[in-house]
Amino acid sequence: MQNLDESILQKVIKARPQESFKGTFGKIVLVGGNENFGGAIIMAATAAVYGGTGLVTAATDPANSAALHAQLPEAMFADFNDDQLVGDLIVAADTVVVGPGLGDNAQSLHILKNVFEYVHDGQTLVIDGSAITLMARENLKQPACQISVIYTPHQMEWQRLSGIKIADQSVENNQKAVQKLNATVVLKKHHTEIYHDDQVFKLPIGSAAQAVGGMGDTLAGMVGSFTAEFKDDGLDAVLAAVYAHSAVADQIAENQYIVLPHQISHALPAFMKKVAAQDSKTHIGFMD
Amino acid sequence: MQNLDESILQKVIKARPQESFKGTFGKIVLVGGNENFGGAIIMAATAAVYGGTGLVTAATDPANSAALHAQLPEAMFADFNDDQLVGDLIVAADTVVVGPGLGDNAQSLHILKNVFEYVHDGQTLVIDGSAITLMARENLKQPACQISVIYTPHQMEWQRLSGIKIADQSVENNQKAVQKLNATVVLKKHHTEIYHDDQVFKLPIGSAAQAVGGMGDTLAGMVGSFTAEFKDDGLDAVLAAVYAHSAVADQIAENQYIVLPHQISHALPAFMKKVAAQDSKTHIGFMD
Amino acid sequence: MQNLDESILQKVIKARPQESFKGTFGKIVLVGGNENFGGAIIMAATAAVYGGTGLVTAATDPANSAALHAQLPEAMFADFNDDQLVGDLIVAADTVVVGPGLGDNAQSLHILKNVFEYVHDGQTLVIDGSAITLMARENLKQPACQISVIYTPHQMEWQRLSGIKIADQSVENNQKAVQKLNATVVLKKHHTEIYHDDQVFKLPIGSAAQAVGGMGDTLAGMVGSFTAEFKDDGLDAVLAAVYAHSAVADQIAENQYIVLPHQISHALPAFMKKVAAQDSKTHIGFMD
Amino acid sequence: MQNLDESILQKVIKARPQESFKGTFGKIVLVGGNENFGGAIIMAATAAVYGGTGLVTAATDPANSAALHAQLPEAMFADFNDDQLVGDLIVAADTVVVGPGLGDNAQSLHILKNVFEYVHDGQTLVIDGSAITLMARENLKQPACQISVIYTPHQMEWQRLSGIKIADQSVENNQKAVQKLNATVVLKKHHTEIYHDDQVFKLPIGSAAQAVGGMGDTLAGMVGSFTAEFKDDGLDAVLAAVYAHSAVADQIAENQYIVLPHQISHALPAFMKKVAAQDSKTHIGFMD
Repeated sequence: MQNLDESILQKVIKARPQESFKGTFGKIVLVGGNENFGGAIIMAATAAVYGGTGLVTAATDPANSAALHAQLPEAMFADFNDDQLVGDLIVAADTVVVGPGLGDNAQSLHILKNVFEYVHDGQTLVIDGSAITLMARENLKQPACQISVIYTPHQMEWQRLSGIKIADQSVENNQKAVQKLNATVVLKKHHTEIYHDDQVFKLPIGSAAQAVGGMGDTLAGMVGSFTAEFKDDGLDAVLAAVYAHSAVADQIAENQYIVLPHQISHALPAFMKKVAAQDSKTHIGFMD
Repeated sequence: MQNLDESILQKVIKARPQESFKGTFGKIVLVGGNENFGGAIIMAATAAVYGGTGLVTAATDPANSAALHAQLPEAMFADFNDDQLVGDLIVAADTVVVGPGLGDNAQSLHILKNVFEYVHDGQTLVIDGSAITLMARENLKQPACQISVIYTPHQMEWQRLSGIKIADQSVENNQKAVQKLNATVVLKKHHTEIYHDDQVFKLPIGSAAQAVGGMGDTLAGMVGSFTAEFKDDGLDAVLAAVYAHSAVADQIAENQYIVLPHQISHALPAFMKKVAAQDSKTHIGFMD
Repeated sequence: MQNLDESILQKVIKARPQESFKGTFGKIVLVGGNENFGGAIIMAATAAVYGGTGLVTAATDPANSAALHAQLPEAMFADFNDDQLVGDLIVAADTVVVGPGLGDNAQSLHILKNVFEYVHDGQTLVIDGSAITLMARENLKQPACQISVIYTPHQMEWQRLSGIKIADQSVENNQKAVQKLNATVVLKKHHTEIYHDDQVFKLPIGSAAQAVGGMGDTLAGMVGSFTAEFKDDGLDAVLAAVYAHSAVADQIAENQYIVLPHQISHALPAFMKKVAAQDSKTHIGFMD
Repeated sequence: MQNLDESILQKVIKARPQESFKGTFGKIVLVGGNENFGGAIIMAATAAVYGGTGLVTAATDPANSAALHAQLPEAMFADFNDDQLVGDLIVAADTVVVGPGLGDNAQSLHILKNVFEYVHDGQTLVIDGSAITLMARENLKQPACQISVIYTPHQMEWQRLSGIKIADQSVENNQKAVQKLNATVVLKKHHTEIYHDDQVFKLPIGSAAQAVGGMGDTLAGMVGSFTAEFKDDGLDAVLAAVYAHSAVADQIAENQYIVLPHQISHALPAFMKKVAAQDSKTHIGFMD
């Protein structure tokens, strides 16, 4: 097991090429937010916009459209009940995030299956929250095509998906389960662990100031954002997102008892600039 | 009668345990906000989110969903007309707040009765605003189960609930009424008083800069937030919420003619950090 | 004609009495904002909330409820088509503002007439924008009861109401027309003039940075706010509102090419604090 | 081909005349924002309001009204499906912007044709985004009346409109196509080019931090804003808008990895003040 450190940030977050346009930095579709949990998909989309993905669409319940655009005009909206529209958006996307605030009823399941129908080779699919619960409960298999699947469960969701009780979630047991899944798993906990093939990474930063609702939705949005924007970086993009999420939170927590999830997203453009400006330099004080 | 001072803050607001998750810091459901008074439940929910409760749901009129999520994506939404959904949320909650912007018509009464039906042993129930008026007018008894009931009336609401005219609201008369109620009473006024069993506490801080609409909704949200988040602290959590509410307001009022209620909530994470950082130290200048 | 100066601020904006509650600082109802001009009533209500009025209700088209509460949870909402509800609110108010974004169609006229039906002796009625145009076009008389009526027309609206062409709007002609009206008139222009009985005041401050949409809605809200909050000050409350509006704008305009109307409202609590802190001192540098 | 520099800003952005009112600074109607792309028209309208145009109306899908007013009360709203209302607004406008978030279906086409029907001699018409695509696809001619037409295509949209493949978009080829169009073309790319008659201007500033969704909507709004507000400046108003857009972005990008489009708009009042304060001075350090 390898401890992540800030070098992962500099490996991924580099100065942008001058000859580029918004398409250069990826397209992401985030699917979730039923009529009760609209804030979840808004927080995930906020992370994607502020993380720098070129084009961001939130596919969600129409009840959430006004709240989305009231705070995030930079994102586009789609009705998550419109299978064809969501399908078309997915076909054109680099990364799809499904789950934040999706819920776990029949409607949620239908939407999740529609997502799985349209994803295709070469894409990244981030599966979060109730989408994981639904897969476990309904015994729904992950798409069979050549996509990078990333799960972002907390421990109870991981128990449901892997069948491993929380008390038994040792690195060894988790690794075995992950290898069967053919996926990357970001297991959210105090000192989050990231499993990928035979590699295990541990996040040594973060704090209990992040233990508030919406923190995971923001993480899912950041993981999605980085995989779309830095798509050549593969696993490193995932690791950088996980690291950046808690590094920013730690900075905010120096002056706050809790960290509001949206504050992490809003701090990303400045944080990422500092990383990119460091470039070849390493390790020392770059976050000051 | 005992004067509250800032030591109550340090007693309650401590550094968070590292091994924790959002569930560690409580679940709260806030019920209120009809089609006219949506801002009230939004302000109460804002206090709960920024106060640090782990999971926050606002059960309110669907007309308020967009405004809620537009400014507070961290909160979840429930239709307060959906008795079963609200009931399920209440069953899973540590604290229930009912009243901010609830109104006092037949719909309001139905919703209030539904809340009373689902609360259960071991919970905290904060009863505010028109919920108090409704109880008095409809002669509705507080739930009989083993819950901690906290009323947050202003003087006229207290008159309605206790039958004691404002002019006659002496400490002695109030104490007798409170003891019959089997509840804690936060009597909002210039120098708010808190009654609990045979104890009476007086708030020596606060100012007329707080005399604006929504101030009480924010207080109800903070009391709810602290009782869920610091549930082992019992009455102290209530006292700390009441003290923090005016301590933050006093800081803002140094530079403002009035204090906007939402500003108190937004200032909480930084305020609580300063308190927690003081820890074992006492009394001197911790708010500087 | 008398030049206003900052002494009018200190005359009106004093330290708040400690023994007070939100009712002490007045109730205001603002009526306007049809489906096209919702921003107007929101800006007026924002001025009233940040100006410090104790209780603020915006009676407007239901389409504007979400946008109102998304940015101003401190205000309450009423459907301006509900004659009885609006009437009840007006009966309980100290000040009624009608006109910002009201429009000038049949619905607007009906709403305006409903307002005129419910206002009563002892209140202040601020008539702004299209409400003035409607009165002129429909030959609608101002309410006959003992209320303080304040018109806030720009020059074209004043032409419509008074029959005096803009080119002929001399102080003398305006005074004659105002005296027939039995009202106070705030004639908005470069160097706004305020007419009241045989008195005429001139505003020597303000700038073209204020020449943007919504500036008048904010002024109407401030005039309403001050007349409700400082109701014993009569005409002085109006003069203080007009002066404060441009004094704040001038401060913002030091660093901005234009002043956004909502920025004036947001700056009021700090501005008013500085004024109140000056108290008995006069004139020198209080805005530094 | 001429490099733009900051002198274009001082040529256009001057101190406002004291004797003025909001009408002095122009009226603009922005048409776009279907139910999916509401953020686009909101961002364009935000640019127009913060850019200083006197009166700003967004004609858009009713689904976007709440989100518009929640963040921009200074703008007015019109239902873009109401042909007559939109037509009346256009008749009274100095500048019309059509396209941001308009979409490209039958509804979009109908709305676009309605705009073209009402524009008239002496106006400026900014055609952006999917409106360009629609014109190309439907072979829709630009209005024949004496208006200043400004296209703001990115390279693919320009290919569609001009028939020139991206690889062949040389200055010479572009110029020929523009001259046939009888229009000004702002060709958005790394180092944007502006074509007008036989003149070509190149924007030497800007960066890849601007390569995010919504950046073009904001530019269209600024171009519209400046042509309405500084209408006597003709082409210079367009050039100043294009230059200011990237100059502000460059300032923000000093501290941010990406620039959020709405941040550019929000920074305009302070930026324009610095320019206007420079007045007769030139070139050196005015943006410090």
